[in-house]
Parts: sequence; C-alpha cells; structure tokens
Amino acid sequence: MTATTQPPFQTSADSLDPTDWNSVRQMGHRMLDDMVDMLAGLREAPVWQPMPPAARQALRGGALPTEPGDLDAVYQDFQTLVQPYGSGNSHPRFMGWVQGGGNPVGMLAELLAAATNPNLGGRDHAPIEVERQVIRWAAEMLGFPQDASGVLVTGTSMANLIAVLVARTRALGTDVRRTGLQGRRLVAYTSVEAHNCVARAMDMAGLGSDALRLIGVDAQHRIDLHALQAAIAQDTAAGLHPFMVVGCAGTVDTGAVDDLSALAALARTQGLWFHVDAAYGALAMLSPAQRPLVQGLSEADSVAFDFHKWAQVPYDAGCIVVRDAALHAATFASQPAYLQRSVRGMAGNQPWPTDFGPDLSRGFRALKVWMTLKTYGAAKLGQVVAHNCSLAQHLARCVDAEPQLERLAPVTLNVVCFRVKAPGVDLDALNADIVADVQESGVAVSSTTRIGGVLAIRVALVNHRTRQEDLQMLLDAVLAAAQQRLASA
Amino acid sequence: MTATTQPPFQTSADSLDPTDWNSVRQMGHRMLDDMVDMLAGLREAPVWQPMPPAARQALRGGALPTEPGDLDAVYQDFQTLVQPYGSGNSHPRFMGWVQGGGNPVGMLAELLAAATNPNLGGRDHAPIEVERQVIRWAAEMLGFPQDASGVLVTGTSMANLIAVLVARTRALGTDVRRTGLQGRRLVAYTSVEAHNCVARAMDMAGLGSDALRLIGVDAQHRIDLHALQAAIAQDTAAGLHPFMVVGCAGTVDTGAVDDLSALAALARTQGLWFHVDAAYGALAMLSPAQRPLVQGLSEADSVAFDFHKWAQVPYDAGCIVVRDAALHAATFASQPAYLQRSVRGMAGNQPWPTDFGPDLSRGFRALKVWMTLKTYGAAKLGQVVAHNCSLAQHLARCVDAEPQLERLAPVTLNVVCFRVKAPGVDLDALNADIVADVQESGVAVSSTTRIGGVLAIRVALVNHRTRQEDLQMLLDAVLAAAQQRLASA
Repeated sequence: MTATTQPPFQTSADSLDPTDWNSVRQMGHRMLDDMVDMLAGLREAPVWQPMPPAARQALRGGALPTEPGDLDAVYQDFQTLVQPYGSGNSHPRFMGWVQGGGNPVGMLAELLAAATNPNLGGRDHAPIEVERQVIRWAAEMLGFPQDASGVLVTGTSMANLIAVLVARTRALGTDVRRTGLQGRRLVAYTSVEAHNCVARAMDMAGLGSDALRLIGVDAQHRIDLHALQAAIAQDTAAGLHPFMVVGCAGTVDTGAVDDLSALAALARTQGLWFHVDAAYGALAMLSPAQRPLVQGLSEADSVAFDFHKWAQVPYDAGCIVVRDAALHAATFASQPAYLQRSVRGMAGNQPWPTDFGPDLSRGFRALKVWMTLKTYGAAKLGQVVAHNCSLAQHLARCVDAEPQLERLAPVTLNVVCFRVKAPGVDLDALNADIVADVQESGVAVSSTTRIGGVLAIRVALVNHRTRQEDLQMLLDAVLAAAQQRLASA
Repeated sequence: MTATTQPPFQTSADSLDPTDWNSVRQMGHRMLDDMVDMLAGLREAPVWQPMPPAARQALRGGALPTEPGDLDAVYQDFQTLVQPYGSGNSHPRFMGWVQGGGNPVGMLAELLAAATNPNLGGRDHAPIEVERQVIRWAAEMLGFPQDASGVLVTGTSMANLIAVLVARTRALGTDVRRTGLQGRRLVAYTSVEAHNCVARAMDMAGLGSDALRLIGVDAQHRIDLHALQAAIAQDTAAGLHPFMVVGCAGTVDTGAVDDLSALAALARTQGLWFHVDAAYGALAMLSPAQRPLVQGLSEADSVAFDFHKWAQVPYDAGCIVVRDAALHAATFASQPAYLQRSVRGMAGNQPWPTDFGPDLSRGFRALKVWMTLKTYGAAKLGQVVAHNCSLAQHLARCVDAEPQLERLAPVTLNVVCFRVKAPGVDLDALNADIVADVQESGVAVSSTTRIGGVLAIRVALVNHRTRQEDLQMLLDAVLAAAQQRLASA
C-alpha cells in the first residue's frame, strides 16, 4: 500500500471528518506499518542523533497554518523532521534517565483511546470504570486497602503535589481551601537525594521550598533517621508545625531506597503524613527479588509513581494512591452547578476522578495502563524490574573490574554511577565530554549527575529491551571516547 | 482479516516486544478498521447509554492480573465492556458539556505519539521543537508576541493554576517559591460565572478560594466593572494586596464573554495581572464573525485554553500562554544536578518545557495539536466555531418560537439555556427529569445548570459534527419527554 494508491484526505464541508473514510483507514494502516517497522528495527537504529540545523529550522519557522494541508505531506513532515530525532528512550541502549521504553500494546491502546476520545473528569461512562479498576490494581500492587483512592495524572511531579495538598488538608483541615494558609508554618521532611519536584510541590502549595527540610543520608544514600528526628524536634521547639515526611523508593541519582518501615513508624509516632515518592520504585513490589527493598511502602499514607517508567506504559501516566479516600476527596472535591451530580443519567456515578485531583479535562490514559497490565500481567512487569536490577549488578561488576573506571555509589536497584579515571586532567570535564561524545555517536545514552561533589556518569536501567550486550557496547564506547579525549588532550 | 488468521501476540522472553511483530501489525490494523467504522457510523449510534450492571460489575471485579492475557481477549473486553458505554462527546448530538468531538487526524497522531513515546519534559529532541511550534502558533492565534512562552498541559484547570502561580511570582517576587506565602494576603478577582477551577487554583496555591472575589455580572452575564473597581478599592483600603483579575472568554453556564478590553485597561491602571480563562473562547479568534466578541484577549498577560474543546483535538490538550516568558520561567524553572543542562548532547536545547509548568514527565500531546492544525488549517477550525455559534442562534430562535419553552439566558457564543414551562408543577424537577430521560434515550445529551435560581436545560454546541437536524432531534425529544412526564404526573 503506497501513498499514490491512497485516496487523499479531504475534509467534509460540514465537519472535520473526511469525505471518504477510506482515506483515514489507509493512512492509518500505512502509519501503523511504519511504526511497527520502526519498533522492530529499534536495536539497529541510533539511540539518539542531534537535529540537523535545517530540520530544526523547518520546525522553528512557519506561521500558524491557515489553509488545509495535505495529510500525506503532514505525515511526511513527521517522518523527516520529527521521527528520526526523537528522545531515544524506547531504544535498548537508552540508559540516560529514568524513562520507560513504552510497549506495543500501550501504543495500540492510545489509538483506541484517541478514537473513543472520552473526558475522564467525571460522569457515568465505562472509561471511568476502567480508571477505577486501574486504581484498585495500583492499590493492590502497593499493598494498600481496596478502598484506597487514587487518580491518574501526568506524572509523579503532579502526584507529589496532590500528596502535599492532601497532607496539608489533614494538618489544617478543609478550611484551608477557603482561607488559605494565613501564615501557618507547615514543615515537611525528605532526604537531600529526593527529587526536586517535592520541593516544587511545596513551592506551588504556598508553603515554600525552604519548609521542606532536606535531611542528610547514610552511606547507602538513605535518609538519616537520627538527623530526621533531630530536625523534627528542632522545628517543633521553634513553634513550627511538622506535617509530612516524604520517603524515597528509588532516588533519581543512585536508586537508593529509604528505610520505609522505619519512616512509617516514625511518622506514626510523630503524627506526620507519610508519603512515598516511588516514581519508579513502586514497581519493585512486583518483583519477588526486589520487593524486600521497598518494604514499608504498604504502610504509607500515600504513594506517587509512574506507569510510564518501570511499567513501560507510553508517556504520560502517573498515579497517586491515597489510603484515606475521604480526606483525599475533601482536598479536591467541589460541586458547582454545571458539575451537578445526579443519581441517574450521565451525571451520576460519583465520586468522579476530578474529585481526587486538580484536573477536570482528563484523557483516557487509563486504557493504556489497563491493556498493558491485562496483556502482559504483573508478573512479567516484575521480571522486567528484576532483569534491570540484575543488569545493574552486572554493570557494577564490569565497572569494578575495569581499572580505568571508578564506581561512585552503591547499587540498590537499577542505577549505576561511575566515572573514568585519568591522572592530571579535570575529571569532571572529561567525564561530561565522554557522556556527550557517546550520546552524539548514537551508540548509547547515559547521563551525568554529581555524587559526593564529583561529576558521575549515570546509567539508569529502566528499559525492558536492554540486554547485557548493550551494557558492553556502552562501556566500550565510554572507554573509546576516553581514550580519544585523553590522546588528543 | 479476522482474529483467527492473526498470529497470536506472544511476548518475547527478554522484553515486552512480541516474538512476531506481525501479531502487533495485524491486531493494529483490525483495531484501526474497527475505530474508523465506529467513527463513520457515529451519527447512527446512540449518543450515550447507561452501562448494564453486568458490564459495570465485570470492570469492578477482578484482582490485579498476574499472568499474561491474550491480547485478542483484552481487545474483546474493550469492545464489549468499554466502547459501547463511552462518554458520547464525539457524537453529533452530544451537547451536554463543553467538550470537543475529537478528529481522525488527531487520532492517528496519538498512534504516532505513543509509538515514538518521547518524554517532553526537556532535553534536545524534535518533539520539543514540535511543542514549541504549537506554542508559537497559539501565541499567534491569541495575538500575543512571538516571544511569549507557553506549555501544553492536561487542560485549562491546570493552565489556570499556572497563571495564578506566575501572577503570584509577579506580586511577591521569586523568593515566594522558597519562603512560602508567610501570611501575605493576595486577592484576585473574577466574575461569579467563572469556572470553579479558578477558585481551585487559588486554593491549591495556598491563597485560599475566599481570596478570589466573585464579582456580580450584568444582564449579559459579563463581570460588572463598577463592582469590580469597588471591590479592588475596598480590599486595598483593608490592607490587602490585589494582584490578579481573571476574565472569562466563554463562561461555562451561558457562554458569556467579559469586556476583555475594559478589563485589560483596568488591570493596567490597577497594576494587576490580567489572566483570561478562555477554555473554549480562545478559538473564537479564528472566526472572523466571533473574533470581535473576544476583543481584548490579545492584551492579556496570560491566556488559558483547551485544544480538546473547540479545536477538536483528542483529549487531553490544554495550553497556557504567558506574555512575559522570563517571569513564567522564574516561576517554575530549577536545575538540580540530574537535570543539568549542557551546550551539546541530549542535555542541551534549553529552556525546557518543564521550566514553564509543574510537569517533568510529559507525553507528546503536541503532535495531535500540530497535525490537526497543519491538516485542517486554522481557518477551518474557525468555521467550526462559526458554525456552532450559528447553530446556537438557530436553537435560540426555535426555543423562542416554541410556547412550551422559555429561554433563560442571552446567547453570546455557543451555549443556549432554556427550560420547559408547565403550570402547577415543580419545574426544576421536571426539567432535570427531562434531561436525564433524553440522555437515557440515547437520542441527544444536554445537561443542567442553574440560571437566576432556576434549573436550566443547557445546550453547549462544541462538536464539529453537529448539524441543524440534530438540534431538531434534541428539541423533539425534549418536548416528547415533557409530554410523557406531564401526562403521567
């Protein structure tokens, strides 16, 4: 089937539908075949390549299109300007950041979701029930009670904001929604290794990021419980109001997991809301080998995580689960006249997802999660987690065995931090150059972070397609780039 | 092509990819044909039908699937449990709420977006450039300068939150991000007809919904400018800090548009941030007939709107555009080590979308907007707006000509509010029953709201597929339901 045999997409005079539905059908079949070919050939393609200036310029120029364009030409623009210069995270040798690789079932689900096009803010329809089922499954995965509440969001950044707001309601009562903070000084606690979005949530909620105490960590990069207790005592003595502690299940820099059971106990004793940022670590619950590492997760008051990371659902699909559904709804629900609920008709079936988060317009992101879980099964996703973690251990061993490399952090889950050593050169600059060199080669993508004051090459193993041979290709590329850099220095 | 000739979807041992890519290909082709058939047959299908208890129960029961499921069976679950009981908003006779109908180009774009699966939080890749182009087009549509900033979000609820936070930064400086509000009392202004999500934004930002003054409206349901000035003067005299006024371009209840030019002038005089909630009204900029109604929109400091409403892009695709890009970035940007920017490699190409909003994980919702705009052109979307507005005028005339019906609000854009009259009965109950009766009949979906203290039947014309004959079917169904209710009373 080629472009020339295809009926052109012509829009009806009185709608955006085509005059001939076969034009959509055939264009769709062509796109689908192309996308399947792309996925099937992923391993042989470059992970990433910089956009040529001409392609970038083509996307930067151009006014708002006024007149209709040929769909075939639009697709060609996608194929030439967009597709080759993607973000690379689907590729088996993308190890740069904690991003999932997507999956073909999730891809097909997005087609179905866009075709049916529901708004999941609320009302009585089956997509709402699909999301509720996904939330119950999430609660089950986390070891939460089945009457826990939850909602799908873009990602853990938004889920963490929701958690901060629910905890704020618990601390100050629902009146805070009307009255505002009025100078009340809530303080929260997390480790210095927590993701920055927790501080952003405090900022957005009006509490200020300074009110998030960043507690030091132990040698395993876990929050220091003694320092945490001392900080709480100090703030309490200063007349402040400690209200929340945020544990990390898989830190962004090193994959460390806080002692969640100890945090749960401490939060109970101190009367704090216990939230866990488990952006990717939550999925460790599905792997028998890794589950003990996240012990205590089930005792949290709320957990934020992403289905688009270790669960490999296409972007975006974050999730918040809250133990106390009533408190959760009390933080977000409101009923203006045009959102009037009824016991029958389309306006029934409450509570609605909009009662559990800031969004009223919400796409059907639940479907890609639902179909991914139903088709692969949770055990298979757990195997992906286990495989990534065993790859990380393997990579750590390779790094340890290579005299030119130095490991910079213990490996708990799936993140390995190391650097190239060389005498008499600026190691931070050298390692940053190596990471960019290897990225630009298209062979593999790692990233940089800072560990103990030095720049580290950071390898995050999240992709379900990554194999041991891919690690070797990365290491070979890193060492080759190092040699070239050092030879030309 | 039938299910029986299709190779079964079997997952590889070492990834979530299939052992045979033809299984994905053929399942995808089948789904695509089914979805095209569904869209082509939309007009003949019921708008909405309540879920049978058995279907609801099937989605409510069931533990987290542990073992793999057959993709064919999963799709069958979708076909039997989900697809028939959708939210109806794609249907030409869905007139219940302000929701777009989607479009087939946007549907195909979602397939491409899920296949390529980028994260649009940041870094250097073409999908980021696509989103930037969409934002520049949005700025052009709104009459904003080309260096305005913006970002795609789920919907206007989130976009309004972003606007409140940017305005908060302008009022209090960037220190507020660290220090929190510390008792500072900002107050904002909007009309009583504003969407509730503006109050929710104030709530989430820690300012409290009470600090949003809900100003009365005139006979055209537009904010009363004298009352607004008086409220600002009173708050200023009371030592409070007025910081923002939110105009409405298309209210949710009646489609009213505030006098945006006057609001812009007043905001300038008073030193207030001028934000416009133009959730659907922004698209009126594309219709020569409606553009004068939203005059003054181009003078705003920020505008929030949805591409999934009048631009008919599949859910979800909201947008915020901010005139002062530096202030916008100052409200959200931060650079932890693992988000280190560089001048080359994947970590270049700043500023990143995450610098303009709360999300770091962000799907490729830009693609469905980009392809929709490029394929249909802005003029065609403007024609949809004009068509919906002329349908609203037609419906208003029909209502006015029918002695049994009473119109309850003027028609500015695309919303018509009316009710059935009858002597000696509870009209609120009667009209609520009629709306639910007609919804349950599957013929048409309208909704209810309250206008001037009475329950109104609310018809919001947003769907590109709606024709004059659909309005007649709605009215016939309403009158028939009324007759039946009154006869059996």
